[in-house]
Amino acid sequence: MDASVDLPQRLALPGHVVTLERASAADVPAVVALLRDDPIGAGREAAPDAPGGEGLAPYREAFAAVDADPHQLLVVVRSEEGQLVGTLQLTLLHGLSRGGATRLQVEAVRVAAGLRGSGLGRALLAWAAAWGRAHGAVLAQLTTDLRREDARRFYEGLGWVHSHAGLKLDLR
Amino acid sequence: MDASVDLPQRLALPGHVVTLERASAADVPAVVALLRDDPIGAGREAAPDAPGGEGLAPYREAFAAVDADPHQLLVVVRSEEGQLVGTLQLTLLHGLSRGGATRLQVEAVRVAAGLRGSGLGRALLAWAAAWGRAHGAVLAQLTTDLRREDARRFYEGLGWVHSHAGLKLDLR
Repeated sequence: MDASVDLPQRLALPGHVVTLERASAADVPAVVALLRDDPIGAGREAAPDAPGGEGLAPYREAFAAVDADPHQLLVVVRSEEGQLVGTLQLTLLHGLSRGGATRLQVEAVRVAAGLRGSGLGRALLAWAAAWGRAHGAVLAQLTTDLRREDARRFYEGLGWVHSHAGLKLDLR
Repeated sequence: MDASVDLPQRLALPGHVVTLERASAADVPAVVALLRDDPIGAGREAAPDAPGGEGLAPYREAFAAVDADPHQLLVVVRSEEGQLVGTLQLTLLHGLSRGGATRLQVEAVRVAAGLRGSGLGRALLAWAAAWGRAHGAVLAQLTTDLRREDARRFYEGLGWVHSHAGLKLDLR
Protein backbone atom coordinates (compact mmCIF):
# COMPACT_ATOMS: atom_id res chain seq x y z
CA MET A 1 0.00 0.00 0.00
CA ASP A 2 1.08 3.56 -0.69
CA ALA A 3 2.47 4.78 2.63
CA SER A 4 0.87 8.18 2.03
CA VAL A 5 -2.58 6.72 2.68
CA ASP A 6 -1.73 4.73 5.83
CA LEU A 7 -3.73 5.58 8.94
CA PRO A 8 -3.43 7.45 11.23
CA GLN A 9 -2.80 10.42 8.97
CA ARG A 10 -2.44 14.08 9.94
CA LEU A 11 -4.22 16.60 7.74
CA ALA A 12 -3.25 20.26 7.99
CA LEU A 13 -6.21 22.49 7.18
CA PRO A 14 -6.24 26.28 7.29
CA GLY A 15 -6.16 27.11 11.00
CA HIS A 16 -6.24 23.59 12.43
CA VAL A 17 -4.87 20.09 12.21
CA VAL A 18 -6.99 16.93 12.31
CA THR A 19 -6.10 13.25 12.29
CA LEU A 20 -7.72 10.56 10.14
CA GLU A 21 -7.93 7.25 11.97
CA ARG A 22 -9.39 3.80 11.54
CA ALA A 23 -12.47 3.83 13.80
CA SER A 24 -12.44 1.73 16.97
CA ALA A 25 -15.41 0.33 18.88
CA ALA A 26 -15.05 3.20 21.36
CA ASP A 27 -15.84 5.66 18.56
CA VAL A 28 -19.29 4.20 17.80
CA PRO A 29 -21.34 6.63 19.96
CA ALA A 30 -19.60 9.68 18.46
CA VAL A 31 -19.99 8.34 14.90
CA VAL A 32 -23.72 7.86 15.51
CA ALA A 33 -23.91 11.41 16.88
CA LEU A 34 -22.34 12.67 13.63
CA LEU A 35 -24.78 10.62 11.53
CA ARG A 36 -27.65 12.18 13.49
CA ASP A 37 -26.36 15.74 13.20
CA ASP A 38 -28.14 16.31 9.91
CA PRO A 39 -31.78 17.02 8.96
CA ILE A 40 -32.19 13.74 7.05
CA GLY A 41 -30.10 11.57 9.38
CA ALA A 42 -31.79 12.83 12.55
CA GLY A 43 -35.01 10.99 11.72
CA ARG A 44 -33.44 7.62 11.18
CA GLU A 45 -30.65 7.25 13.74
CA ALA A 46 -30.99 6.33 17.42
CA ALA A 47 -30.28 8.97 20.03
CA PRO A 48 -26.79 8.10 21.33
CA ASP A 49 -27.73 9.17 24.84
CA ALA A 50 -30.87 7.02 25.11
CA PRO A 51 -31.30 5.58 28.64
CA GLY A 52 -29.12 2.51 29.12
CA GLY A 53 -27.61 2.93 25.68
CA GLU A 54 -29.56 -0.04 24.23
CA GLY A 55 -30.21 2.15 21.21
CA LEU A 56 -26.56 1.71 20.24
CA ALA A 57 -26.50 -2.10 20.22
CA PRO A 58 -27.27 -2.46 16.47
CA TYR A 59 -24.58 0.13 15.69
CA ARG A 60 -22.04 -1.79 17.76
CA GLU A 61 -22.94 -5.00 15.90
CA ALA A 62 -22.66 -3.21 12.56
CA PHE A 63 -19.28 -1.78 13.57
CA ALA A 64 -18.01 -5.27 14.42
CA ALA A 65 -19.12 -6.54 10.99
CA VAL A 66 -17.46 -3.63 9.16
CA ASP A 67 -14.31 -3.94 11.24
CA ALA A 68 -14.03 -7.69 10.51
CA ASP A 69 -14.40 -7.24 6.74
CA PRO A 70 -11.04 -6.77 4.99
CA HIS A 71 -12.81 -4.91 2.17
CA GLN A 72 -14.30 -2.26 4.46
CA LEU A 73 -12.83 0.65 6.40
CA LEU A 74 -14.65 3.04 8.70
CA VAL A 75 -12.66 6.27 9.00
CA VAL A 76 -13.02 8.90 11.70
CA VAL A 77 -11.52 12.39 11.83
CA ARG A 78 -10.36 13.63 15.23
CA SER A 79 -9.62 17.22 16.15
CA GLU A 80 -6.56 18.19 18.19
CA GLU A 81 -8.91 18.38 21.20
CA GLY A 82 -9.91 14.74 20.64
CA GLN A 83 -13.42 15.44 19.31
CA LEU A 84 -14.78 13.38 16.40
CA VAL A 85 -15.38 15.91 13.63
CA GLY A 86 -15.88 13.72 10.56
CA THR A 87 -16.43 10.19 9.27
CA LEU A 88 -16.85 8.17 6.11
CA GLN A 89 -17.06 4.51 5.26
CA LEU A 90 -15.18 2.89 2.38
CA THR A 91 -15.76 -0.48 0.71
CA LEU A 92 -13.74 -2.09 -2.08
CA LEU A 93 -16.15 -3.75 -4.53
CA HIS A 94 -14.69 -6.20 -7.01
CA GLY A 95 -16.74 -6.87 -10.13
CA LEU A 96 -16.60 -7.93 -13.76
CA SER A 97 -18.10 -4.86 -15.42
CA ARG A 98 -15.96 -2.05 -16.88
CA GLY A 99 -13.09 -4.40 -17.65
CA GLY A 100 -13.07 -6.13 -14.27
CA ALA A 101 -12.90 -2.80 -12.45
CA THR A 102 -12.52 -2.57 -8.69
CA ARG A 103 -14.81 0.15 -7.34
CA LEU A 104 -14.48 2.27 -4.23
CA GLN A 105 -17.91 2.60 -2.62
CA VAL A 106 -18.21 5.64 -0.36
CA GLU A 107 -20.98 5.73 2.25
CA ALA A 108 -21.98 7.78 5.28
CA VAL A 109 -19.88 10.90 4.75
CA ARG A 110 -20.33 13.43 7.55
CA VAL A 111 -18.48 16.54 8.69
CA ALA A 112 -19.34 18.16 12.04
CA ALA A 113 -21.54 21.25 11.66
CA GLY A 114 -18.84 23.57 13.00
CA LEU A 115 -16.33 22.46 10.37
CA ARG A 116 -18.52 22.50 7.25
CA GLY A 117 -16.91 24.81 4.71
CA SER A 118 -13.50 24.44 6.40
CA GLY A 119 -11.93 22.30 3.67
CA LEU A 120 -12.16 19.16 5.82
CA GLY A 121 -14.69 17.45 3.54
CA ARG A 122 -12.58 18.18 0.48
CA ALA A 123 -9.42 16.85 2.17
CA LEU A 124 -11.24 13.76 3.47
CA LEU A 125 -12.61 12.87 0.01
CA ALA A 126 -9.21 13.46 -1.60
CA TRP A 127 -7.64 11.10 0.92
CA ALA A 128 -10.39 8.51 0.26
CA ALA A 129 -9.71 8.64 -3.50
CA ALA A 130 -5.99 8.11 -2.85
CA TRP A 131 -6.80 5.18 -0.54
CA GLY A 132 -8.99 3.66 -3.28
CA ARG A 133 -6.24 4.06 -5.89
CA ALA A 134 -3.70 2.49 -3.54
CA HIS A 135 -6.03 -0.52 -3.29
CA GLY A 136 -6.54 -0.89 -7.03
CA ALA A 137 -9.85 0.93 -7.45
CA VAL A 138 -10.31 2.69 -10.79
CA LEU A 139 -13.75 4.13 -10.10
CA ALA A 140 -15.28 5.65 -6.98
CA GLN A 141 -19.03 5.83 -6.46
CA LEU A 142 -21.48 7.24 -3.97
CA THR A 143 -25.09 8.28 -3.86
CA THR A 144 -26.44 11.40 -2.23
CA ASP A 145 -30.06 12.12 -1.37
CA LEU A 146 -31.62 14.28 -4.09
CA ARG A 147 -32.74 16.66 -1.33
CA ARG A 148 -29.09 17.38 -0.47
CA GLU A 149 -28.41 19.92 -3.22
CA ASP A 150 -25.43 21.39 -1.38
CA ALA A 151 -23.85 17.95 -1.06
CA ARG A 152 -24.28 17.28 -4.77
CA ARG A 153 -22.66 20.58 -5.66
CA PHE A 154 -19.84 19.83 -3.21
CA TYR A 155 -19.07 16.51 -4.91
CA GLU A 156 -19.38 17.97 -8.40
CA GLY A 157 -16.88 20.65 -7.37
CA LEU A 158 -14.46 17.83 -6.54
CA GLY A 159 -14.84 16.28 -10.01
CA TRP A 160 -17.55 13.74 -9.31
CA VAL A 161 -20.01 13.31 -12.18
CA HIS A 162 -23.77 12.98 -11.70
CA SER A 163 -24.11 10.32 -14.40
CA HIS A 164 -26.42 7.88 -12.61
CA ALA A 165 -29.77 7.65 -10.87
CA GLY A 166 -29.52 6.19 -7.36
CA LEU A 167 -32.44 3.86 -6.62
CA LYS A 168 -33.27 2.29 -3.27
CA LEU A 169 -35.68 -0.50 -2.33
CA ASP A 170 -36.91 -0.97 1.22
CA LEU A 171 -36.57 -4.69 2.02
CA ARG A 172 -38.38 -4.61 5.37
CA MET B 1 -30.48 -19.04 5.12
CA ASP B 2 -34.00 -19.19 3.76
CA ALA B 3 -34.02 -22.36 1.62
CA SER B 4 -36.17 -20.59 -0.96
CA VAL B 5 -33.21 -18.46 -2.02
CA ASP B 6 -30.59 -21.23 -2.22
CA LEU B 7 -28.87 -21.69 -5.57
CA PRO B 8 -29.35 -23.31 -8.03
CA GLN B 9 -32.96 -22.18 -8.27
CA ARG B 10 -35.44 -22.90 -11.07
CA LEU B 11 -37.62 -20.01 -12.21
CA ALA B 12 -40.72 -20.73 -14.25
CA LEU B 13 -41.47 -17.86 -16.63
CA PRO B 14 -44.30 -17.73 -19.13
CA GLY B 15 -43.21 -20.13 -21.87
CA HIS B 16 -39.85 -21.16 -20.49
CA VAL B 17 -37.88 -22.23 -17.46
CA VAL B 18 -34.50 -20.84 -16.47
CA THR B 19 -32.09 -21.69 -13.67
CA LEU B 20 -30.32 -19.18 -11.39
CA GLU B 21 -26.85 -20.35 -10.45
CA ARG B 22 -23.77 -19.12 -8.65
CA ALA B 23 -21.36 -18.26 -11.49
CA SER B 24 -18.29 -20.42 -12.02
CA ALA B 25 -14.99 -19.45 -13.66
CA ALA B 26 -16.18 -21.18 -16.84
CA ASP B 27 -19.02 -18.65 -17.12
CA VAL B 28 -16.72 -15.60 -17.34
CA PRO B 29 -16.65 -15.32 -21.18
CA ALA B 30 -20.45 -15.54 -21.42
CA VAL B 31 -20.93 -13.00 -18.60
CA VAL B 32 -18.63 -10.57 -20.41
CA ALA B 33 -20.61 -11.13 -23.62
CA LEU B 34 -23.79 -10.18 -21.73
CA LEU B 35 -22.13 -7.07 -20.29
CA ARG B 36 -21.13 -6.06 -23.84
CA ASP B 37 -24.57 -6.69 -25.34
CA ASP B 38 -25.75 -3.18 -24.58
CA PRO B 39 -25.13 0.24 -26.16
CA ILE B 40 -23.33 1.63 -23.09
CA GLY B 41 -21.53 -1.57 -22.10
CA ALA B 42 -20.24 -2.26 -25.61
CA GLY B 43 -17.83 0.67 -25.43
CA ARG B 44 -16.20 -0.35 -22.19
CA GLU B 45 -15.95 -4.14 -22.19
CA ALA B 46 -13.35 -6.31 -23.97
CA ALA B 47 -14.46 -8.43 -26.92
CA PRO B 48 -14.76 -11.97 -25.51
CA ASP B 49 -13.51 -13.47 -28.75
CA ALA B 50 -10.37 -11.34 -29.01
CA PRO B 51 -7.44 -13.36 -30.41
CA GLY B 52 -5.86 -15.49 -27.70
CA GLY B 53 -8.43 -14.35 -25.20
CA GLU B 54 -5.95 -12.11 -23.34
CA GLY B 55 -8.71 -9.54 -23.20
CA LEU B 56 -10.47 -11.73 -20.63
CA ALA B 57 -7.59 -11.95 -18.13
CA PRO B 58 -8.73 -8.96 -16.00
CA TYR B 59 -12.26 -10.39 -15.93
CA ARG B 60 -10.94 -13.76 -14.75
CA GLU B 61 -8.99 -12.03 -11.98
CA ALA B 62 -12.04 -10.00 -11.00
CA PHE B 63 -14.16 -13.15 -10.93
CA ALA B 64 -11.67 -14.84 -8.60
CA ALA B 65 -11.82 -11.85 -6.22
CA VAL B 66 -15.64 -11.80 -6.23
CA ASP B 67 -15.82 -15.55 -5.79
CA ALA B 68 -13.43 -15.47 -2.81
CA ASP B 69 -15.39 -12.73 -1.00
CA PRO B 70 -18.05 -14.14 1.34
CA HIS B 71 -20.02 -10.88 0.99
CA GLN B 72 -20.30 -11.10 -2.80
CA LEU B 73 -22.25 -13.33 -5.15
CA LEU B 74 -22.17 -13.33 -8.94
CA VAL B 75 -25.38 -14.87 -10.26
CA VAL B 76 -25.95 -16.23 -13.75
CA VAL B 77 -29.22 -17.29 -15.38
CA ARG B 78 -29.09 -20.31 -17.67
CA SER B 79 -31.72 -21.31 -20.20
CA GLU B 80 -32.87 -24.90 -20.63
CA GLU B 81 -30.56 -25.04 -23.66
CA GLY B 82 -27.60 -24.10 -21.44
CA GLN B 83 -27.19 -20.53 -22.74
CA LEU B 84 -26.38 -17.72 -20.31
CA VAL B 85 -29.34 -15.34 -20.55
CA GLY B 86 -28.90 -13.08 -17.52
CA THR B 87 -26.57 -12.00 -14.74
CA LEU B 88 -26.33 -9.75 -11.73
CA GLN B 89 -23.86 -9.19 -8.94
CA LEU B 90 -24.81 -8.85 -5.28
CA THR B 91 -22.78 -7.49 -2.37
CA LEU B 92 -23.76 -7.30 1.29
CA LEU B 93 -22.58 -3.97 2.71
CA HIS B 94 -22.51 -3.59 6.47
CA GLY B 95 -22.56 -0.05 7.82
CA LEU B 96 -23.51 2.13 10.76
CA SER B 97 -25.97 4.49 9.07
CA ARG B 98 -29.75 3.94 9.16
CA GLY B 99 -29.59 2.14 12.48
CA GLY B 100 -26.69 -0.15 11.56
CA ALA B 101 -28.46 -1.29 8.39
CA THR B 102 -27.02 -4.00 6.16
CA ARG B 103 -27.45 -3.00 2.50
CA LEU B 104 -27.75 -5.15 -0.58
CA GLN B 105 -25.72 -3.55 -3.37
CA VAL B 106 -26.84 -4.64 -6.83
CA GLU B 107 -24.45 -4.21 -9.77
CA ALA B 108 -24.13 -5.29 -13.39
CA VAL B 109 -27.69 -6.42 -14.08
CA ARG B 110 -28.11 -7.77 -17.62
CA VAL B 111 -30.76 -9.77 -19.45
CA ALA B 112 -30.04 -11.19 -22.92
CA ALA B 113 -31.59 -9.12 -25.71
CA GLY B 114 -33.94 -11.93 -26.75
CA LEU B 115 -35.44 -12.21 -23.26
CA ARG B 116 -35.99 -8.54 -22.44
CA GLY B 117 -39.65 -8.02 -21.65
CA SER B 118 -40.09 -11.72 -20.83
CA GLY B 119 -40.43 -11.26 -17.06
CA LEU B 120 -36.93 -12.62 -16.44
CA GLY B 121 -35.57 -9.30 -15.16
CA ARG B 122 -38.50 -8.90 -12.80
CA ALA B 123 -38.10 -12.45 -11.47
CA LEU B 124 -34.33 -12.05 -11.11
CA LEU B 125 -34.67 -8.82 -9.11
CA ALA B 126 -37.39 -10.34 -6.91
CA TRP B 127 -35.09 -13.28 -6.17
CA ALA B 128 -32.22 -10.87 -5.40
CA ALA B 129 -34.39 -8.95 -2.90
CA ALA B 130 -35.34 -12.24 -1.20
CA TRP B 131 -31.65 -13.24 -1.07
CA GLY B 132 -30.82 -9.89 0.52
CA ARG B 133 -33.57 -10.26 3.12
CA ALA B 134 -32.41 -13.81 3.92
CA HIS B 135 -28.95 -12.34 4.62
CA GLY B 136 -30.21 -9.56 6.88
CA ALA B 137 -30.31 -6.67 4.41
CA VAL B 138 -33.01 -4.07 5.06
CA LEU B 139 -32.26 -1.81 2.09
CA ALA B 140 -31.27 -2.60 -1.50
CA GLN B 141 -29.49 -0.08 -3.68
CA LEU B 142 -28.30 0.25 -7.25
CA THR B 143 -27.44 2.99 -9.67
CA THR B 144 -28.46 3.11 -13.30
CA ASP B 145 -27.00 5.35 -15.99
CA LEU B 146 -29.23 8.41 -16.47
CA ARG B 147 -29.25 7.57 -20.21
CA ARG B 148 -31.04 4.27 -19.46
CA GLU B 149 -34.55 5.65 -19.11
CA ASP B 150 -36.13 2.25 -19.77
CA ALA B 151 -34.06 0.69 -17.01
CA ARG B 152 -35.08 3.37 -14.54
CA ARG B 153 -38.76 2.88 -15.37
CA PHE B 154 -38.29 -0.90 -15.05
CA TYR B 155 -36.88 -0.55 -11.52
CA GLU B 156 -39.50 2.02 -10.51
CA GLY B 157 -42.17 -0.44 -11.67
CA LEU B 158 -40.71 -2.96 -9.21
CA GLY B 159 -41.00 -0.49 -6.31
CA TRP B 160 -37.51 0.99 -6.37
CA VAL B 161 -37.45 4.72 -5.52
CA HIS B 162 -35.29 7.24 -7.35
CA SER B 163 -34.39 9.13 -4.18
CA HIS B 164 -30.66 9.63 -4.76
CA ALA B 165 -28.18 11.05 -7.25
CA GLY B 166 -25.53 8.53 -8.30
CA LEU B 167 -22.12 10.17 -8.62
CA LYS B 168 -18.96 8.57 -10.01
CA LEU B 169 -15.34 9.68 -9.93
CA ASP B 170 -12.76 8.29 -12.32
CA LEU B 171 -9.70 7.34 -10.23
CA ARG B 172 -7.38 6.60 -13.14
